Amino acid sequence: MITVLAAPGSLIAGQLLALDDDEVHHLGVRRAEAGELATAVDGAGARAWGVLEREGKRLALRVETVQHEPAPPVTVLALGAGDRDRFGQVADQAAALGATVIVPLETERSLSVATRLKPAHLERMQRRATDALKQCGAAWSPGIAPLISLTAWVAGSPATVGWLADAHGGPMPALARGAALTIAVGPEGGFTEAERAGMLATGFTPVRCAPAVLRFETAALAALTTAWQARQRGFDG
Amino acid sequence: MITVLAAPGSLIAGQLLALDDDEVHHLGVRRAEAGELATAVDGAGARAWGVLEREGKRLALRVETVQHEPAPPVTVLALGAGDRDRFGQVADQAAALGATVIVPLETERSLSVATRLKPAHLERMQRRATDALKQCGAAWSPGIAPLISLTAWVAGSPATVGWLADAHGGPMPALARGAALTIAVGPEGGFTEAERAGMLATGFTPVRCAPAVLRFETAALAALTTAWQARQRGFDG
Repeated sequence: MITVLAAPGSLIAGQLLALDDDEVHHLGVRRAEAGELATAVDGAGARAWGVLEREGKRLALRVETVQHEPAPPVTVLALGAGDRDRFGQVADQAAALGATVIVPLETERSLSVATRLKPAHLERMQRRATDALKQCGAAWSPGIAPLISLTAWVAGSPATVGWLADAHGGPMPALARGAALTIAVGPEGGFTEAERAGMLATGFTPVRCAPAVLRFETAALAALTTAWQARQRGFDG
Repeated sequence: MITVLAAPGSLIAGQLLALDDDEVHHLGVRRAEAGELATAVDGAGARAWGVLEREGKRLALRVETVQHEPAPPVTVLALGAGDRDRFGQVADQAAALGATVIVPLETERSLSVATRLKPAHLERMQRRATDALKQCGAAWSPGIAPLISLTAWVAGSPATVGWLADAHGGPMPALARGAALTIAVGPEGGFTEAERAGMLATGFTPVRCAPAVLRFETAALAALTTAWQARQRGFDG
């Protein structure tokens, strides 16, 4: 069944949901027609089922039922703002892997990547993260935070459980199912020794997610997978 | 330190290792010079340290010491032969995630992917899998098997522990540290219901690797990560 995106809070049973141009285009590409069943998600936990109707020249969704899914546990992925295409691959898969926020970090080594993520690309990253809901079946969209320097981020981040994805880290820690978790992953080349030491000093636990050194975008996916498996095995608390 | 690739069995302490054209080119791009320390891996567990020497117009490696690393536990990734670029991303990260063999599977849905992996691409996939050792630090290279139909593969595959990466699967199973493991991951769109039923009938365990539906190449990376974490927590046996 085709899934379309709706603005947060716009899914109301019985109402006709107008679709934005991207969604209308998406339905056209998928050759959807009036009378067909479809679902919608709003990125804020609402999932609707309904029937496509023709509204003038465009298709719209007549919402029949709406369910609200509980928010997933807070999982912040703070990722080195390296190559923007590789960063985008992470944005695209973040919802499916359970990330709730992605914070692009400016680090010593990310700043030497010529193709690095910059503020002008954030809107596109958010679009990729939200668009992915159409494929992955999740009802909550991860938010993409503004770029921030690693130093400022470490100084200002709240005292939640923090993991540092690290080739020399320890085994997967135990994790409370509902606990907020922050995972830091370096850019191409990783964090510098000084950056790493700074994070360890503020309480981050180095966690190993693979037997060898991963590309930074794969490290992000492996760290999210590790976090999700730790939560699945997790304790209540 | 720069890492170069050597042919399996070619790393011998005291000898001068001739490098193939790709490696000589790689050293040129990295601006390596005679007198510099370098390492080499042969993809079959040998890791060498030595010094670059000029041999005529080319650089070669004077091997000083050689270590042999034990083979990682057999981890077969049987992956739907979908889009070849996405498949290549998995080949590129397979060694770093602990895969020892990748089997490209022809399935009902892979055969409808226009850009699917075909026999002519296997050599390039093997090259990507081996080249990745230069970045990831692993000493063993995964082998890329010939394409095989899912039916023939299931009929002929040995009775090892088998996981089926599945959005409706169960939690990460316990795994003996050294046990051989086979992980099956479908192509774009997944396995069909009939294919899935056939694998379950032959003893595959459906395992869930993420909270939502992943792209097939991300599913492969998440399944390998899950397997590695299960082994790390594993029992002896």
